[in-house]
Amino acid sequence: QIDHFGFDENLTFQQRYLIADQHWKKDNGPILFYTGNEGDITWFCNNTGFMWDVAEELNAMLVFAEHRYYGESLPFGNESFSDSKHLNYLTSEQALADFAVLIEYLKTNIAGARNSPVIAIGGSYGGMLAAWFRMKYPHVVVGALAASAPIWQFGDLVPCGTYFSIVTNDFKKSGIGCSESIRNSWNAINNLSSTDTGLQWLSNTFHLCSPLKNLQDAAILKNWLSETWINLAMVNYPYKADFLQPLPAWPVQEVCKFLKDPSLSDKLLLQNVFQAVNLYYNYSGEASCLDMYETATKNLGQLGWYYQACTEMVMPMCTDGVNDMFEPQKWDFEALSDECYRLWGVRPRPSWILSMYGGKNISSHSNIVFSNGGLDPWSAGGVTQNISDSLVAIMIPDGAHHLDLRSRNPLDPKSVQQARDLEICYMKQWI
Amino acid sequence: QIDHFGFDENLTFQQRYLIADQHWKKDNGPILFYTGNEGDITWFCNNTGFMWDVAEELNAMLVFAEHRYYGESLPFGNESFSDSKHLNYLTSEQALADFAVLIEYLKTNIAGARNSPVIAIGGSYGGMLAAWFRMKYPHVVVGALAASAPIWQFGDLVPCGTYFSIVTNDFKKSGIGCSESIRNSWNAINNLSSTDTGLQWLSNTFHLCSPLKNLQDAAILKNWLSETWINLAMVNYPYKADFLQPLPAWPVQEVCKFLKDPSLSDKLLLQNVFQAVNLYYNYSGEASCLDMYETATKNLGQLGWYYQACTEMVMPMCTDGVNDMFEPQKWDFEALSDECYRLWGVRPRPSWILSMYGGKNISSHSNIVFSNGGLDPWSAGGVTQNISDSLVAIMIPDGAHHLDLRSRNPLDPKSVQQARDLEICYMKQWI
Repeated sequence: QIDHFGFDENLTFQQRYLIADQHWKKDNGPILFYTGNEGDITWFCNNTGFMWDVAEELNAMLVFAEHRYYGESLPFGNESFSDSKHLNYLTSEQALADFAVLIEYLKTNIAGARNSPVIAIGGSYGGMLAAWFRMKYPHVVVGALAASAPIWQFGDLVPCGTYFSIVTNDFKKSGIGCSESIRNSWNAINNLSSTDTGLQWLSNTFHLCSPLKNLQDAAILKNWLSETWINLAMVNYPYKADFLQPLPAWPVQEVCKFLKDPSLSDKLLLQNVFQAVNLYYNYSGEASCLDMYETATKNLGQLGWYYQACTEMVMPMCTDGVNDMFEPQKWDFEALSDECYRLWGVRPRPSWILSMYGGKNISSHSNIVFSNGGLDPWSAGGVTQNISDSLVAIMIPDGAHHLDLRSRNPLDPKSVQQARDLEICYMKQWI
Repeated sequence: QIDHFGFDENLTFQQRYLIADQHWKKDNGPILFYTGNEGDITWFCNNTGFMWDVAEELNAMLVFAEHRYYGESLPFGNESFSDSKHLNYLTSEQALADFAVLIEYLKTNIAGARNSPVIAIGGSYGGMLAAWFRMKYPHVVVGALAASAPIWQFGDLVPCGTYFSIVTNDFKKSGIGCSESIRNSWNAINNLSSTDTGLQWLSNTFHLCSPLKNLQDAAILKNWLSETWINLAMVNYPYKADFLQPLPAWPVQEVCKFLKDPSLSDKLLLQNVFQAVNLYYNYSGEASCLDMYETATKNLGQLGWYYQACTEMVMPMCTDGVNDMFEPQKWDFEALSDECYRLWGVRPRPSWILSMYGGKNISSHSNIVFSNGGLDPWSAGGVTQNISDSLVAIMIPDGAHHLDLRSRNPLDPKSVQQARDLEICYMKQWI
């Protein structure tokens, strides 16, 4: 059903989901249900090894459900993103209803699944969906593991600057001079981008696929660098991994090796910054130039997510250049709203998510584990303190973005191993 | 907001609500919030005296919120019912979102209300909304009183015939020969409506405003009579009242005085049936003729409710003529669906309410009191057994449709007094 909440259009669409039942104990063994987020479900499936490990231990079936408007689950095919009319059904509420109906369908159609308890599992936006799924459909899922789920990164629930200060701390801890080098780089770019030769120098130095032509392009360069530092903080995993990009172990430490001296001249500093971002974008050594319009894996549906950020998913963010290493920028809702209107003809409703999912007032719910990585900027908006006996926060001090959802690895820090053990322990209580 | 769940149309509408704060203890005294149902809110306000009595006791503010598409809360004014496009936002989910946003608004805009605990109260469909409101928005309401709320009259959760057998029992208990007279009346009508003179005799005898012309009209007559018996069972209050129609105390007993002898000839039997329905439609003695197309107060929005029954609110009903006094009729979903498509261009989704609100699997929720009247046909789909310590069922054996929500009356049976005391006791625990 494309529209669960209205009856005028009775259209349906094909939703993609993946099932793995080799460990499943038929006749009511549990189901671990991955609440897909803003991207291709096969990619999440390949990066959520934790579920495979748990499947063995709990004799569980795995289901990975793709979120509508991402991957191959396009309600209107190629037309899905053509205008606000076609995008109208891209909301978290519709996605949760998809999940509820899908589970109902699976329980009816898979022999022996009728009474299987279902546990929702997700990370990041998918983690928010897992938590909200348990809140809104407790009759469908007995519990939820919400990994790195910033359910409080809305309204005024948390300070808008914490996110960037966590990124900054990651860099500060990963090498002397590192965060200062980045903080100084913005002015260096500003200085150089004031002249045409400077812009050309920047284009060459950063091996940009399309050269910078004016100050606006220079602003894009700075945004792209910011995104890069953020992404590095998110995927600062303790081993070689390939999530947003192929990267070595502890990639923030690796890039910080290029950023030891913040007092260098503009050009020398920026040459070092290039070395750093080149490690992120070109670890394989195959890129002939760097593309400022591409910061992470293509498996993420940026267009769809941008629409969601323009409607429900309004997450206030700000920097001050003091508690963080970024250029100071206040949270500007008006600018966002105007941009959304220009792009999609929609205006965001920043308070709706709070009205819908309760903001901080969620204590009457039950059976949700919120896990957060201490290195993960998204922990800024996460639930990091227990709310009740059955709304539990697990902190992983050495963890980046939902590290706990990844496969077991010999290089895993102790904290993530313990977190996983605890998560499994709660799951056993629920089923 | 007309559409809470999409962003393509950013239209808003005026929702009507009534506030009474003369008993309210400013600075966080509780708010009793009536979740309006399918009708004019002023009428519900005038028939929910219980809330006024409780307001005094709890120093509470009263808010009566009108349901969208009823009374004066028409999203598109006169156009609201013009087609399925305009009707698309008439759903329980949108109505609940209206309530959540309204409470948020009131708390922000009424001085001293910011931290007031809110209790949802409703009867019948409004009672379902009160229960569902607590289930879906527990951060907005601390608890709910769901009076005569048939939340299980969906899918195959309860037998489709119980509703009519309760109606029948009311008549059976209210006078010897009463239910049998009604059971025999269908055949009497069938016999008479086979001839034109018979049809004319029926039209005259029942003082019909528009005479019967054929068998189809005779079927409408029978439907109208069925509706009348059902309504009488619903409003079988122990005192003179004016809910669906002005009526004496224990109106079923009153009409049964005309229906003592089921063995009479067709014509004599039907003359008695007329006397009975005439009491319902013409207690005031002012009606010059009876209108088969009008069975209850005009304060109910029949058109809107019919649309809801054609979309989400699919309540299977059936009769067998054995356990009930009606003509046997199986539940026919196909016929309903075709009729809905003919009328509105929509098809009902009978399983959606179960997916959305959990069917019988609601034990993880809390703080809901379900009250049911033993005389009320809607108790067939109600919660009549405790589900947990905080999902509580209260039975009122001598109560008709949400009798407990009405003002205190000297003629109230003991059972409703006790029910109200218990309801207030739970409310005190919640706030």
